[in-house]
Amino acid sequence: MSSADKLAQVSRGFASDNAAGVHPAVLEAVAAANTGHAFGYGHDRLTETVESLLRAEFGSSSRPFLVWGGTAANVLSLRACCRPWEAVICAASAHLNVDEAGAPEAIAGVKLLTAPTDDGKLSIEQIEGLITRMGDEHAVQPRVVSISQSTELGSVYEREEVAAIAELAHDRGLLLHMDGARLCNAAAALGIDLAQTSTELGVDVLSFGGTKNGLLGAEAVVFMRDGLAHGFEYLRKQSMQLASKMRFLAAQFEALLHDELWRSLAGNSNAMAGSLGAALAAIPEVTVTRPVQANAVFVLLPFAAIARLHEQFDFYEWDERSGEVRFMCAWDTTDDDVARLVSAVREAVA
Amino acid sequence: MSSADKLAQVSRGFASDNAAGVHPAVLEAVAAANTGHAFGYGHDRLTETVESLLRAEFGSSSRPFLVWGGTAANVLSLRACCRPWEAVICAASAHLNVDEAGAPEAIAGVKLLTAPTDDGKLSIEQIEGLITRMGDEHAVQPRVVSISQSTELGSVYEREEVAAIAELAHDRGLLLHMDGARLCNAAAALGIDLAQTSTELGVDVLSFGGTKNGLLGAEAVVFMRDGLAHGFEYLRKQSMQLASKMRFLAAQFEALLHDELWRSLAGNSNAMAGSLGAALAAIPEVTVTRPVQANAVFVLLPFAAIARLHEQFDFYEWDERSGEVRFMCAWDTTDDDVARLVSAVREAVA
Amino acid sequence: MSSADKLAQVSRGFASDNAAGVHPAVLEAVAAANTGHAFGYGHDRLTETVESLLRAEFGSSSRPFLVWGGTAANVLSLRACCRPWEAVICAASAHLNVDEAGAPEAIAGVKLLTAPTDDGKLSIEQIEGLITRMGDEHAVQPRVVSISQSTELGSVYEREEVAAIAELAHDRGLLLHMDGARLCNAAAALGIDLAQTSTELGVDVLSFGGTKNGLLGAEAVVFMRDGLAHGFEYLRKQSMQLASKMRFLAAQFEALLHDELWRSLAGNSNAMAGSLGAALAAIPEVTVTRPVQANAVFVLLPFAAIARLHEQFDFYEWDERSGEVRFMCAWDTTDDDVARLVSAVREAVA
Amino acid sequence: MSSADKLAQVSRGFASDNAAGVHPAVLEAVAAANTGHAFGYGHDRLTETVESLLRAEFGSSSRPFLVWGGTAANVLSLRACCRPWEAVICAASAHLNVDEAGAPEAIAGVKLLTAPTDDGKLSIEQIEGLITRMGDEHAVQPRVVSISQSTELGSVYEREEVAAIAELAHDRGLLLHMDGARLCNAAAALGIDLAQTSTELGVDVLSFGGTKNGLLGAEAVVFMRDGLAHGFEYLRKQSMQLASKMRFLAAQFEALLHDELWRSLAGNSNAMAGSLGAALAAIPEVTVTRPVQANAVFVLLPFAAIARLHEQFDFYEWDERSGEVRFMCAWDTTDDDVARLVSAVREAVA
Repeated sequence: MSSADKLAQVSRGFASDNAAGVHPAVLEAVAAANTGHAFGYGHDRLTETVESLLRAEFGSSSRPFLVWGGTAANVLSLRACCRPWEAVICAASAHLNVDEAGAPEAIAGVKLLTAPTDDGKLSIEQIEGLITRMGDEHAVQPRVVSISQSTELGSVYEREEVAAIAELAHDRGLLLHMDGARLCNAAAALGIDLAQTSTELGVDVLSFGGTKNGLLGAEAVVFMRDGLAHGFEYLRKQSMQLASKMRFLAAQFEALLHDELWRSLAGNSNAMAGSLGAALAAIPEVTVTRPVQANAVFVLLPFAAIARLHEQFDFYEWDERSGEVRFMCAWDTTDDDVARLVSAVREAVA
Repeated sequence: MSSADKLAQVSRGFASDNAAGVHPAVLEAVAAANTGHAFGYGHDRLTETVESLLRAEFGSSSRPFLVWGGTAANVLSLRACCRPWEAVICAASAHLNVDEAGAPEAIAGVKLLTAPTDDGKLSIEQIEGLITRMGDEHAVQPRVVSISQSTELGSVYEREEVAAIAELAHDRGLLLHMDGARLCNAAAALGIDLAQTSTELGVDVLSFGGTKNGLLGAEAVVFMRDGLAHGFEYLRKQSMQLASKMRFLAAQFEALLHDELWRSLAGNSNAMAGSLGAALAAIPEVTVTRPVQANAVFVLLPFAAIARLHEQFDFYEWDERSGEVRFMCAWDTTDDDVARLVSAVREAVA
Repeated sequence: MSSADKLAQVSRGFASDNAAGVHPAVLEAVAAANTGHAFGYGHDRLTETVESLLRAEFGSSSRPFLVWGGTAANVLSLRACCRPWEAVICAASAHLNVDEAGAPEAIAGVKLLTAPTDDGKLSIEQIEGLITRMGDEHAVQPRVVSISQSTELGSVYEREEVAAIAELAHDRGLLLHMDGARLCNAAAALGIDLAQTSTELGVDVLSFGGTKNGLLGAEAVVFMRDGLAHGFEYLRKQSMQLASKMRFLAAQFEALLHDELWRSLAGNSNAMAGSLGAALAAIPEVTVTRPVQANAVFVLLPFAAIARLHEQFDFYEWDERSGEVRFMCAWDTTDDDVARLVSAVREAVA
Repeated sequence: MSSADKLAQVSRGFASDNAAGVHPAVLEAVAAANTGHAFGYGHDRLTETVESLLRAEFGSSSRPFLVWGGTAANVLSLRACCRPWEAVICAASAHLNVDEAGAPEAIAGVKLLTAPTDDGKLSIEQIEGLITRMGDEHAVQPRVVSISQSTELGSVYEREEVAAIAELAHDRGLLLHMDGARLCNAAAALGIDLAQTSTELGVDVLSFGGTKNGLLGAEAVVFMRDGLAHGFEYLRKQSMQLASKMRFLAAQFEALLHDELWRSLAGNSNAMAGSLGAALAAIPEVTVTRPVQANAVFVLLPFAAIARLHEQFDFYEWDERSGEVRFMCAWDTTDDDVARLVSAVREAVA
């Protein structure tokens, strides 16, 4: 039985891209790495190889570090960049702000300075408005701008937008962090490389996500300069993100980077979301509430329809008051899955 | 080619039990869990099943939580149990004190009160001596006694010893934490169950380790009472240890607990260490410095021999001044591996 | 020369109520406490006496603790009430949020959930809107509502408003903290007692400020129940707010509470602000932007006038873009001071 | 009635040098500073003046910051110097380690690496022994050596000893912090200046104490170079040690530095301790346990004598098991006080 056949047999919902499993090539890489003993904590050959691959991807002066989770990648990025009195500017909808259970504050010790956005993307004006009170000892001092690419609302920053934010940040002495939990989706959507989507545009520190795009559980923090990474090996260990059997995290990234597997997986998620968005937009009772630029589709559904749909599919009620729901496509979402969902929505709203 | 044949082909050293790879049954369980979508963050059926298995193992009122790493299991245990002014009593050689890069202090915010030991085991007298200044607002207030089972020095607490420590801790209003990164080795050495080695003796919070005993990367924090676990789901998330694809951590524990795989793996580590210790003790130039009770063997070697041995084997120089080295046996260490090391030591000291 | 004469000779601006000095009776109390030796750290008779006075003021089951500073009183209140995963709801303009340099986040480890307000007062709807995602492990869990009385914008909560907020908080399992850095101003404005303005309305933890009302440097944290104060003596010491020569902090509060000195001082600040507000409102080029309910007066001035005024008076430019400035009256502000400022404003806008 | 007469009337014990009150000149300086309004938070002329005085004392490139308390001066020094993975080497008896309720760990986030000492003084060998595992990511990285001058055990480092420690620290890339809560006592004992006792010997960061030597409550953190002080104004505010009415802290230091008041006060404490130690040494039943080099006298007394003495005098039972007690002399201890204590000890041991 082929992988495709196997996939077809199992249930796949639209709850989240991390509800999906592991791509077979990733599991194979993990199994292939399981030969004999290897030094722990990243001092093994496979990890060294993958660090080289990441440097090839993001630039020869970059410094990549593997960690287990996405919240960790974000929080450790900030913990590395900020002294205790410094602060981080981000969108109110940023994962940092709403989905990390206070880790930025409690673990990194930073205050977040947020602006509400329509589409999850910070504007130049919003960032400028938050760079205030510099030199006032009663106020935290902005040190990092953090943007998500693609965002939690399914939007994608254009290259020029990221470059302009980087320029502003650097002009004001700040660093630019990118939460790239879905960087692959953004790069696939833009049709460019990972570095072109992030570090080449002036991103100083990147959370490069793998788990939402077919890995078992592995992310990378990539610093663009040695100085920024100073001491990060200690910080990673102290922050409880130094895997003893690191080679198995490395193996996952090896598979993801091989022959741009990341692009085909994220490309599939995006394409499925595109189809889904288009099909749902054609249903009169459904309103697509946000542009579909990556792998998320947001729609307004009648409340009764939401209840009915939940009997068949997993998805997330984004705003329980308005009836906005989120359908998330994953690396393994198929045309059939989309068709079944669209058909179910049609019935539910009927 | 059988698994055994495959193992025979690859290199295996004595650096650490986490230099070993993943037991085949564990990888198979991970692969078996990789079917379709599942809710993330532990809200899936496999995680629920494994939590039930752990409750069956440690007691029906116990509350298990899976995390990625061993440092995390320890630090989160303490973070859950301690208010900011409380402190933790442990051996000076405890992993908490020497190998967690300051995480107990920086992340859990606790001060460690330590006593030097010969064998890694805290005595009743040492613990009593550290429960001081209760009620003195200038001093941290001891709240937790933390012991390692088996210890970082390869020793194993007898059941009566743990029970006596638990009684003392409880009499004084303290909790008992057990760092069971190698709990399986202790239970295998004592020939009893995991609970009999830990929670049945009065341990209130347990770090139950899997990674050093054949898992890919999974540990559990087990609280013995609901009250102790209060809020731990938030703490785990905030402490960056909530795996999105939790089912794959659960799968590992499922394999480890199935048919007591843990006992056969840890039993092998222990047996290999026993053989190795006995064989090395028979070499006149070698002094075995500590009783071999679990899977670690500590010996004094001439400095020149250490250098020669390092050309062939990975191991850890425990004390660079005295020439004490540690050989760690793993779940996959074979009689041949031991024989090769013994033979190499004989040549090196000749 | 009388105290009043002396006051008349020196310069007094409108920058802040803590730009004012110390009331003579307070300094006398400090001097009177300076006799011989006394146990340090609050274990002296004067501190015990003052703690009794505070209990008499706020309720026999209340537990008062003296600290040096107002930021400390707030941050320690929250640090005492919150476990790491819990959060604090406050107005965006709260001192906690904008003027404590990130101490709530970095020291207490809490996330602030904020709502923008026109007048510095949280509404029931705003609080309800921020009590969300209870039970969702990805989100911090609201534990405390913090309100300022009087607020940073010079407004005063009516008694019914505080009682309603307390009821909401308690209904939802939250605690109510009051930042009473200017509690005396609120009580004087309402013409009621300190407890009637705070703890009798359901406030669970109070930062009771003295420094802005004529003290040298002393504040109190008052818990309304023993359970809330559990361990606070350690927390105060660890948070570096346990004064060794505590009797001199106690002496200040003794003076403040004696014959309701607090009321006459805060009453004067409020009255002067009232006069100032009325006089400025009568100047056509000046817009009083907020109701004058305590000791702050906010007005819009032409930019050129602001520059001219700064040559003669200290005051704070609240919003550099709009030209809103803040005039703060203090315990020692006189009718003459007000008259001089009004006259200067008239000239500046002419 | 003269100050001396007044002093004679009140009770003075030997519990601690901070059980003593405030020197009259200090209170006078506070009163003198109480004229009109002044900018808060240290932006006033008196604070500027005192900062200049401190720079004159400790070197023109030094950067002094006033804070309220001694624990704060220490903890903030370390918080400023250390990144999260760095550690502090100190004597096991250091105030940092035993009397700050875990603030170094919980607030500064640092781990303390300690060595037991006989006399409270770290030796070169001990420090070298604690500078280990540099570059090992599993271990905290020593960044600061902290010594107390004079020590908690009443000893004083010789100038050469401090210089040698500074040299070692600097050679290894570490900084030297001095806890100078009793720096005045050390300088008075050595008959040299404050800087000669500290910063001129290579101390990089100094906690300069005033409270134990006659102030109301004021300490200074003095950085020897701008770079070390980077961001400290924010750190002080965030750490809740920025006094709003700073001029009154400045006034205290102004008095202390004027005409070397510090020397006469600390000189008196030391002289009284010297007399007391000599007189007690002459009593056969009493053993003076430590050299009297500053203002502390440690003696072994029979348990029954301790109980009797406590009826008349306050003092501290240093070691309840051995019967070692501490008599602390203060700036206001008189010959009569000493004579009365000696006489009481004679009776108590009779």
